[in-house]
Amino acid sequence: MIIGVIGLGLIGGSLAMALGNFENAQIFGVDRSAETRAQAMARGTVYAAWADAKEAPLEEADVVFVCLHPEASVAFVREHAVRLKRGAVLTDVCGVKKPLVEAVEAYLPEGVAFIGGHPMAGRECGGFANATGALFQGAHYILVPTARTTPAACDLLRRMTACMGCADVIEADVKTHDARIAYTSQMMHILAVAICDQAQLMPSKGFEGGSFRAATRVAALDAALWTELFWANREALLGQTQELIEKLSEYAALLAGDDREALQARLTRSAERKRVYNRI
Amino acid sequence: MIIGVIGLGLIGGSLAMALGNFENAQIFGVDRSAETRAQAMARGTVYAAWADAKEAPLEEADVVFVCLHPEASVAFVREHAVRLKRGAVLTDVCGVKKPLVEAVEAYLPEGVAFIGGHPMAGRECGGFANATGALFQGAHYILVPTARTTPAACDLLRRMTACMGCADVIEADVKTHDARIAYTSQMMHILAVAICDQAQLMPSKGFEGGSFRAATRVAALDAALWTELFWANREALLGQTQELIEKLSEYAALLAGDDREALQARLTRSAERKRVYNRI
Repeated sequence: MIIGVIGLGLIGGSLAMALGNFENAQIFGVDRSAETRAQAMARGTVYAAWADAKEAPLEEADVVFVCLHPEASVAFVREHAVRLKRGAVLTDVCGVKKPLVEAVEAYLPEGVAFIGGHPMAGRECGGFANATGALFQGAHYILVPTARTTPAACDLLRRMTACMGCADVIEADVKTHDARIAYTSQMMHILAVAICDQAQLMPSKGFEGGSFRAATRVAALDAALWTELFWANREALLGQTQELIEKLSEYAALLAGDDREALQARLTRSAERKRVYNRI
Repeated sequence: MIIGVIGLGLIGGSLAMALGNFENAQIFGVDRSAETRAQAMARGTVYAAWADAKEAPLEEADVVFVCLHPEASVAFVREHAVRLKRGAVLTDVCGVKKPLVEAVEAYLPEGVAFIGGHPMAGRECGGFANATGALFQGAHYILVPTARTTPAACDLLRRMTACMGCADVIEADVKTHDARIAYTSQMMHILAVAICDQAQLMPSKGFEGGSFRAATRVAALDAALWTELFWANREALLGQTQELIEKLSEYAALLAGDDREALQARLTRSAERKRVYNRI
């Protein structure tokens, strides 16, 4: 089985490392960085790597993972999907699914299967230098089947996520995926940067504990990447952010009022929701 | 040196464990739970334990750590500080310092020193059963000197935090402590519960990654404890929460508008603030 990984950044590089022992896989890569290609070759992560997908043997690949930023992933499908062979499987790792699935519907040749993928894992620092085969261990892997998904493609991706050490596979359609992710991932990034915009950030160095470090960990984000992700899903993300503002405003009103019992009742209710969530 | 630890919950229990090898310390405890007292005796965390501070040999203690909830800590000072011997040191672990320091000023006898303390460490689950001597390793320990602090008391606490494995000691006055903590700790808890109040919580199970787990970790909080902490510092906490709502609203406006460049510029600026913060 020949696997092509397009983009050997943090996610693509980690995927290639994690799939090194997958069945009888041979993995090639595409990355525009000469340094990344040299490192990936030196580490044995890929058997060959090219700077441009034009040069890579896409026609030979049984599986292609598109691991580029969202808009570049769409461009890859538009420009190169036509070269995939019958029976091949195309998958991606985009954090927002709608634009990519639209491109797949428009450009994927007949006989090629597609299934969306979204590993719920990451690190603060990107790039191949930070990639690790252990990145996906214990993480959820969301699979997004569409009209172009075959049972064989779904089964293959499930075997691959097991090989990566993922905790489980969650299946969701495009709309559900993008709605859930607006809340669980995108809003967490908006939140992290908003906290870091506050005047207390710099003077509070040294006063932080685990909760602060945790909530702001992802704030040093790749602005170009996250702008693409937010923009492609902005309606859902805006809705979630507005709802969070409402909930925070309700807490602010309790703090501004003089009904301490009401504050405690609200905290009790919210904490109980989290306990229930932890159990399900 | 005889150390009294009043309250053998998560923090008090962990403190007693972490100070087990401190110089020539002998540690006694006070805890109203018979089960906790039995466990602390069985583990050798304390050489003796009483249900009520009334029965404990406070007169013999060289150092007393008050590790009760904030209002119970104030009540302890009001009722028992009078029994401390000349030369003894009183310290606490309250997350808000103003009420306790006011009680110290009113009730601490002459010749007894006080220094406020706030270890920036915790766990989701409280109680002695979750206590561990490793709790403070790598954490900041905030010391809050007041007019009742002696150089000897400050030096003693610094030696103790080193023994606990703390990363460093930060000194701050009462007002600065309470202002910084409103931002770094209290607001993180408001945020965590507010996120968990959103409609997407339960349906999003399985779609979460590290950022969501991190930002909501502390949401299953002890509502009685956090109501006390929030209420004692509500002016500062309200201010921080309102500022966060403003920052989130600015991001919401960018998502609702049609200026993608402006969103990216804002994300770039915020992420850079976090990178600067990480370096200082």
